[in-house]
Amino acid sequence: MNDANIGGRIIIQQCVSAKLQTNAGSDETPQFVSIGGGIVIYVCFMKDATEDTALKMARTVCNIRLCPSENSGRVSVIELPGDILVVPQATLGGKQKGNRMQYHGNVDKTIGKKLYETLVENLKKIQSDNSKCLEKGVQTQFGTYGNLQVLSVDTNGPYTHILNF
Amino acid sequence: MNDANIGGRIIIQQCVSAKLQTNAGSDETPQFVSIGGGIVIYVCFMKDATEDTALKMARTVCNIRLCPSENSGRVSVIELPGDILVVPQATLGGKQKGNRMQYHGNVDKTIGKKLYETLVENLKKIQSDNSKCLEKGVQTQFGTYGNLQVLSVDTNGPYTHILNF
Repeated sequence: MNDANIGGRIIIQQCVSAKLQTNAGSDETPQFVSIGGGIVIYVCFMKDATEDTALKMARTVCNIRLCPSENSGRVSVIELPGDILVVPQATLGGKQKGNRMQYHGNVDKTIGKKLYETLVENLKKIQSDNSKCLEKGVQTQFGTYGNLQVLSVDTNGPYTHILNF
Repeated sequence: MNDANIGGRIIIQQCVSAKLQTNAGSDETPQFVSIGGGIVIYVCFMKDATEDTALKMARTVCNIRLCPSENSGRVSVIELPGDILVVPQATLGGKQKGNRMQYHGNVDKTIGKKLYETLVENLKKIQSDNSKCLEKGVQTQFGTYGNLQVLSVDTNGPYTHILNF
């Protein structure tokens, strides 16, 4: 897939726990969201992104088998079931030019924010439609779009993957 | 750049501190390396990788301006100067097929290990050739190639970037 015609990009990392500040850069008391075992996803929407990009991202993130299971083999975050932490990360759209990065391929911020909300809503919906997820009480937590992402991640192997949409 | 003809891929994240187990999966007492402020790089070599890929990676990682500086603007990890933690991460070469990832584009493990060592040596060399790095005593730490990477990362904004080589 060529960078020129992708709608978005996600990096997925496996985690034991993760914590993210939702009001970084403000003068308020720091507010955090945190998750237990599951995945951290870093999300970026590109110029060609549509509502369908966000829906496809949500389905793929929930169904792709990258989580370590108690038996051998890998299972999806829904099969685990595990938590999801969504980190907006526009820098994933960067292209190297000399010693700097450029972000000309990124989506307009207003559209990006709307697609980000669609993604989060759909991750939550897929979890809430699954009885194992409901029973275990797994969650989707998420960062504030457009903010600095003050993030800590603990892993037993990040098992980092890049997905283009 | 098409996936078909890349020699390697790196993800760079900014960190306040990071810690990595170097003997995960063994029965020995856990051994760790850690860094302070600087960058974590996740590294994967692909089929087309050569010694030159590893050298170019080292130069780019050291010179690309992604680190937050005390003034406004971004500086390189050498200009900062900051530490570097190198995490081998063959999963970055994965391509999605249905709900699984395939790794057919990854380099042979023996060659990959050699290129990984070249990368680490060259990062250390670039640091040791720089007077500001020597004065501050910054370090390159690295994980064991082919091992599970038990990793913890604390950030003030990961500012995640993907670079292809």
